[in-house]
Amino acid sequence: MTNNQALGRHILVEAYGCGYNILDNMRGIQGAMIEAAERTGATVVDVAFRKFEPYGVSGVVVISESHLAIHTWPEYGYAAIDLFTCGDKADPWKAFEYLLDYFKPKRITTMEIKRGNLITTENKNYIAIDSAGEAIVDE
Amino acid sequence: MTNNQALGRHILVEAYGCGYNILDNMRGIQGAMIEAAERTGATVVDVAFRKFEPYGVSGVVVISESHLAIHTWPEYGYAAIDLFTCGDKADPWKAFEYLLDYFKPKRITTMEIKRGNLITTENKNYIAIDSAGEAIVDE
Repeated sequence: MTNNQALGRHILVEAYGCGYNILDNMRGIQGAMIEAAERTGATVVDVAFRKFEPYGVSGVVVISESHLAIHTWPEYGYAAIDLFTCGDKADPWKAFEYLLDYFKPKRITTMEIKRGNLITTENKNYIAIDSAGEAIVDE
Repeated sequence: MTNNQALGRHILVEAYGCGYNILDNMRGIQGAMIEAAERTGATVVDVAFRKFEPYGVSGVVVISESHLAIHTWPEYGYAAIDLFTCGDKADPWKAFEYLLDYFKPKRITTMEIKRGNLITTENKNYIAIDSAGEAIVDE
């Protein structure tokens, strides 16, 4: 099986050691997330951001059939970021690179998950799930 | 390290073999996702759903500091669902149970990811990242 079979790619980013002010600035984060979405090559269809009191920002950019999301904990210097794109054209890593430069985390981890692994062969239809590198065949 | 240290829990759901009409019904999906969010115990703060032509629905329910998201491919009977909650009170598995009953997938996989693993001990501050069961210590 190949990666090309997946409908989408989903990058989970754990960003630690970010600046308090960056993580608590809703307007700045919203702009950065929209810019990041556009850099993947996707079309932005909706945006929803919220500022929490006393601190923290949540927001989602809905792109064509997928989304980018962020939740920040300024008090911990931490942001949870999701970059989910579908199709061959959109590249979620372009959003990642842009956001890395924006948030400048001291420590970061990423995990890329393939979403929607569909495989069709000539003589049967089956579904393969590749989240852990294994394929489950439904005959 | 314990699970209690994580700021949030994020369940990635791959739902295969769902009915076409269920996956293409934006109004129904929006209602189900809001109901699912409320069942976790979280507070809904924003909602953004879109219907795509000729088929497909995308939507996000922003809850207090986290989100629930869905993207459907009716033509493949597939939905990618994300259930991300934070805090001790919210339980993303309650949303999962409700959505399982709503979408009735023939095949489903789930993956629970801990988001924002923060640990503080007496003599040092460090950050542990547990996405693969390993801890990275920053001394």
